[in-house]
Amino acid sequence: DGQTANAPLPQAAATGAPERPAKLGLCTACHGDDGVSRSAGTPHLGGQDRLYLARSLAAYRSGERRHEPMTSLANTLQPRDIEALAAWYAAQPGFTAGSTP
Amino acid sequence: DGQTANAPLPQAAATGAPERPAKLGLCTACHGDDGVSRSAGTPHLGGQDRLYLARSLAAYRSGERRHEPMTSLANTLQPRDIEALAAWYAAQPGFTAGSTP
Repeated sequence: DGQTANAPLPQAAATGAPERPAKLGLCTACHGDDGVSRSAGTPHLGGQDRLYLARSLAAYRSGERRHEPMTSLANTLQPRDIEALAAWYAAQPGFTAGSTP
Repeated sequence: DGQTANAPLPQAAATGAPERPAKLGLCTACHGDDGVSRSAGTPHLGGQDRLYLARSLAAYRSGERRHEPMTSLANTLQPRDIEALAAWYAAQPGFTAGSTP
């Protein structure tokens, strides 16, 4: 499909920053927009490995991993939402390898 | 017990850095000493929320959360190992909230 392949990239993709996911509002009370945990016991997500984030949401959605409120929230997500949320949090600056080798 | 209370703190405790956990070697092939993931799909642990890390290990140990090799590895841990590992990785510099509010 040449039309799709040659379509201009959205601005966010062009700059490397993911677009704000439509479902991000489900996450922010506990994880923030930036993936910085708002309370002890809640994981930081900013800068986390993208594939790990996507697999975690998929595991909550499938029931392989269970923890409320994540199980209920993940069941409202479509696969494209999961990819968008994983890409968003992975791109946040929270986790940086810093000067480690 | 005044003897214990007045005993000099170990160097690591005095500086606020946790002592290297005895079981850290179980973790490093995938997560590194520093909690920086060595491969896509493996979570970064450095600077992660301490309580989340401890609960995750405990959940793998109890079977509430299942994923190999974590399930098998966590079954070799005692609760004090879990606390030590969680404190170690939480104290690594990987995750920093940075300039976020």
